Parts: sequence; structure tokens; C-alpha cells
Amino acid sequence: MVSGILRVIQFGLGPIGRASAKLAIERGNMELVGAIDIDPEKVGKDVGEWAGLPKTGVKISSDAEKVLAETKPDIVLHTTRSFVKDVFPQFETILSAGVNVVSSTEELLFPRLKNPDLAERLDHLAKKNRVTILGTGVNPGYVLDTLVLVATGVCTDVTRIQAERVVNASERRLPLQKKVGAGMTPDEFRALVNAGKLGHIGMKESVALVAHGLHWKLGSIQEEIEPVIAGRTTATEFLTVAEGRVAGIHNVGRGFANGEERITLDLKMYVGAENPHDGVHLTSVPPIHLEITNGTMGDIATVAMLHNMAPIVADADPGLKTMIDLPIPRVFL
Amino acid sequence: MVSGILRVIQFGLGPIGRASAKLAIERGNMELVGAIDIDPEKVGKDVGEWAGLPKTGVKISSDAEKVLAETKPDIVLHTTRSFVKDVFPQFETILSAGVNVVSSTEELLFPRLKNPDLAERLDHLAKKNRVTILGTGVNPGYVLDTLVLVATGVCTDVTRIQAERVVNASERRLPLQKKVGAGMTPDEFRALVNAGKLGHIGMKESVALVAHGLHWKLGSIQEEIEPVIAGRTTATEFLTVAEGRVAGIHNVGRGFANGEERITLDLKMYVGAENPHDGVHLTSVPPIHLEITNGTMGDIATVAMLHNMAPIVADADPGLKTMIDLPIPRVFL
Repeated sequence: MVSGILRVIQFGLGPIGRASAKLAIERGNMELVGAIDIDPEKVGKDVGEWAGLPKTGVKISSDAEKVLAETKPDIVLHTTRSFVKDVFPQFETILSAGVNVVSSTEELLFPRLKNPDLAERLDHLAKKNRVTILGTGVNPGYVLDTLVLVATGVCTDVTRIQAERVVNASERRLPLQKKVGAGMTPDEFRALVNAGKLGHIGMKESVALVAHGLHWKLGSIQEEIEPVIAGRTTATEFLTVAEGRVAGIHNVGRGFANGEERITLDLKMYVGAENPHDGVHLTSVPPIHLEITNGTMGDIATVAMLHNMAPIVADADPGLKTMIDLPIPRVFL
Repeated sequence: MVSGILRVIQFGLGPIGRASAKLAIERGNMELVGAIDIDPEKVGKDVGEWAGLPKTGVKISSDAEKVLAETKPDIVLHTTRSFVKDVFPQFETILSAGVNVVSSTEELLFPRLKNPDLAERLDHLAKKNRVTILGTGVNPGYVLDTLVLVATGVCTDVTRIQAERVVNASERRLPLQKKVGAGMTPDEFRALVNAGKLGHIGMKESVALVAHGLHWKLGSIQEEIEPVIAGRTTATEFLTVAEGRVAGIHNVGRGFANGEERITLDLKMYVGAENPHDGVHLTSVPPIHLEITNGTMGDIATVAMLHNMAPIVADADPGLKTMIDLPIPRVFL
């Protein structure tokens, strides 16, 4: 970042990756020097055009190793998949090329929880290549973990943490409405949850990160995923949810220590949600009740967190980091 | 911090320092190994007794050099005075002894603003002795600066920042009520402001830290201090403010870039204040409106910030740091 311009590669060009690429092209403090995706529909296209902008001359490539070697960026903005084991080979390629990574992979928020061996290997590989890797986003990554921890900063004691996020899916794009199960029957919803095909990813990681940040040793972390049932028929721009059908998802993560529930993170995303907001409530000295009115817009905030943490990650000590290891997030202007 | 116990010295035993010492003695993760104050009323007293607790065996001493050399603490919790030039010799003594410092000195939040030479010398001295120095607190230090910056973390763009803190001085101790001018005539208030003897310290530093964190180059930082006039007679536990007299202080800090007001930090502390709260309002993408209901209790939160940042400062790279250089604040449990 000698010039003040961060040279980045966008790795993954789905909806979030496309928004990230678009913003990287548009903003003055980044240069998008490469774009990587394996989708044959995208490979070979100009990344600017794919992002709905004029051509940039940067073509989307499926050959990550080649793009990394040719462009030598400061950092990779990584937005492909949710599970660490699925993206581990991608991280291996990036780190081995001596390039930093900031990723929206939900499990990477706190990879030691479910993949301690892979986390260890990522840390080792990053240190060996003198680069840094971080998982972040808005949820997980900010509202139900980083912001919760920052809220405890003015306390001398905290005994209980409750945080919630209520998202009105009516105002969100169709894929998000489908992702939360809007319009399904409750049975369809539960079958998909049981098959591991529906549900917010990263909730347990948020609980684990909060506990880790406070040195709380949790005995267990539990998670519930339930449908929110429409109390009345509700129409959005894209679909209609009949009364009795699923309006969306209610996902709760709980952290227990000595049998007591110490951390409760409560996420509701459904069409027709009233009073959307983010909230942090601490049983603490002094007591803290923090609220973000209307909540934090999800998709753009995830891109923001990736971009805003990018210069911080690029400047950090080598290794696998979490949001508590790095300086405070703030907009990168 | 090998044992997980942070060995600290309390330097300065006024109201905040006493609360800090008390908490350091009571908590399990700190050991108060020394206490320093120059006040002859305090010197020689057991610091536990001074803090309203049983004896600890640690006596308050005026000989900082001796206490530092004998106890070799991990960090000094420093709470003496507000201006960097007044406390510079104290910092010199501490840093030269090879000890980290976290201080409530308001100007130390961003000492480069008013004392760039002294800031440079502190940075040099800290690096030479491989230790770290940080200024923090609740205000300045958290509500109108660190929290504001963290609120921008989910944004892709921010063009305007407005933050406010409204404190109901009725619920605070008598010295705070007097500090904000409660009961004075407006003329008395203005005379003291003009003499530099009344007013919140650190407002310009908060504006400067926010701008620094966002890479905004400000053309000027301005500050206003006005009395809040009591609209009706108001009684507190300690005093009565007659209608027309001063109820408290209204302090505004403004940061301008290219003639435009980009940052406005608005602090009101007065008896009878309704709806006390802390708020952050960003003209941004996405827009952010964050509020802490009832606000963050001042005195205890300042002690909390000192204690919570202490282990982070003790682990940090050497040098003079600000709140944007270090990992996120969170309660130290």
C-alpha cells in the first residue's frame, strides 16, 4: 500500500463478489487487478462488464495460481463458500502465493471451533509466507460478535450477553427471501433444515468469538433454527407468503458456562418483520443497551466489512487472525 | 502477563484513580503492586484503605521512580491531569523505567493535535524502551470517537458524521455537577470558560481522532462551549439550580474539510437532562443510526476503558498508540 492504493483480486463473483468487484472498481483507493471464478458462464468475461460497469481490461479467470503470480496483489477479497473445509484449497493457493486474504467464508470467523486442524494449518501457512488471513462480514463478523465485544469495552464486569438482529426480508433481494424459506410450508422448511440445506451459517462461530474475546470457557454452544410462521398473508415485490406458511427464519445461538446461559444471539430474518434493528443488551456494570435503528443492511455491509478490513489485514502481523486480534473496523476512505 | 494476572501500578489517586485502584484490588485478573500520588494527604497511606477496602500492604508513595524500579509492573494505570505538557515528565519516568502506560489524560487521546513535538518524543521514548503508551477513557476515548469509528465499519462510504452524548448530571456526583457549572450565573460560567477553567477537555482530540481514522484531512477543528440555562428550578441530591441559572455545559466540536462541516460531536452535561443517551448518526452507505439508551455511565466507564485496554496495551507493539492502532476494546474478564 505504498501508494495509498490497495491492489486487490476479487475471488468469487457471485452476488456478494460482484458487488465487491463493482465497488473495488469504482472506489479511488483500490485497484482491481484480477478476478477469479470457476463458473464457465463467467470465465473470460471482463469483470467490469460482469459488474455492470464499463470494461476494465481485467478478465475473469479460473486459474487462481496464474492470476496471483501475474498480478501480485496486496490482498484477495474472497467470497466463495461458507465452510472452511470447502475453501481450504483456495486459501492454500492464495497464502502459498504470498498474498493476504480477507474472506466472507462464515466459518472462517472463528475456524478453530469446527476445524481446529485446518485453522492450525492456515495459521502456519500464513506465517510461513508472511501474510495474514481473516474471516469477516456483517453476520457473522460484526453485528452479533464484533459490535457485541466493543459494547463491553466500557464495562468493568459482564455476566450475560443478549444480542439480536431482526431483518425485514421484504426489503431484500429474492435470493435472500428464498434463502430464509419464505413461502415454504413449515414441513418443507424443517426438512431442509434437517438436511443442512437451510439456515444461517456462522451463528456458533459468533458465539465462540464473543466467548473467546471475553475469556469465557463455554461448556457448550447450542443452536436452534425454527421457521417464523406468517400470521397473515404478506406480499413482497417478488413473492407472496400465505398465512400459515413460512415467512422466514429464526436462528438462535446460545453459549453455556457451568450450565448457565451466558450468551444468546438471536437472529430473525423474515418477510413482513416489524421494527427491524440490531440490538446489544448486556447484564453488566454499567448496564449497556445499544441499538441500531432499522438494523445494518446486510449485503452492502458484508462488502463494506471486507473492503474496510482489507487495508488493516494487509498491514497486520502474519497469521490467521480473528476480529479481536486486529485494530477496530472503520470505513476505508 | 505470563500468569494471566496483570501486575499494575495506579498512578494518581483522585476520584477516578481511587475507583481504578479499588477495582484493581478487587478483580481476580489484576494485582495492584504499587500506588503513586504526590498529595501529602495520601502519601504513606495504605492504598487499600484509601480505596475503602481492607489494607493491602501497598503504601501510596510519591517516589514514582522507586516504585517502578521495585515493582516492575506490566503497566501503569495513569490518572493525574488532562494536559500532555503537564504530565509529560510523569510519562518520561514511566517509559524510561521500561513500563507500559494507559492514561486518562484527555489530550493523550490524540496528542499529535496540540503537542506534536511531545508526541514524537513519547513515541521515540516508548520505542526505545520497548513499551507502549495509550490515552483512552469514555469521553474522550469511546463514545464520541472509538464507537463512532466502529459504527463506520459496515459502511462503504461516509460523508458526514454526527454524534451526541447527553448526560443527566443530576444522577452524578457533586464534583461533576460543579465541573459542568451547575448553579452558576451565565456570566460566571462564561468568565470561567474564557479563563480556561471550565469545559470538557478532549473534544478537539475526539474530532481529530475520528478524522485521522477515516483519512479525512480537516481544514479546521472548532469548539464551542456554552451554558445550558435551566428552564425551571431543578434540585439534585446535592444542589438546586434556580430558573435562569446554569444547569450545565453544552460543548460542540466541529471538523471542517473544504469549508464543509463533516464531523459534529455534541456533548451536553446538565442537571435535569431528559433522555440521556449516546448517539451516532452517519450520512453513509448504508445509513447508520446507533444509540445507547441512557448513555454510558461516565466515571465507571473511564475506569473500565483503562482496565480493559491495559492487557491490550501490554501486548502491543512498542510506541505511542491511539485507539485506532489497537485491537477492539472489550471487557477484561
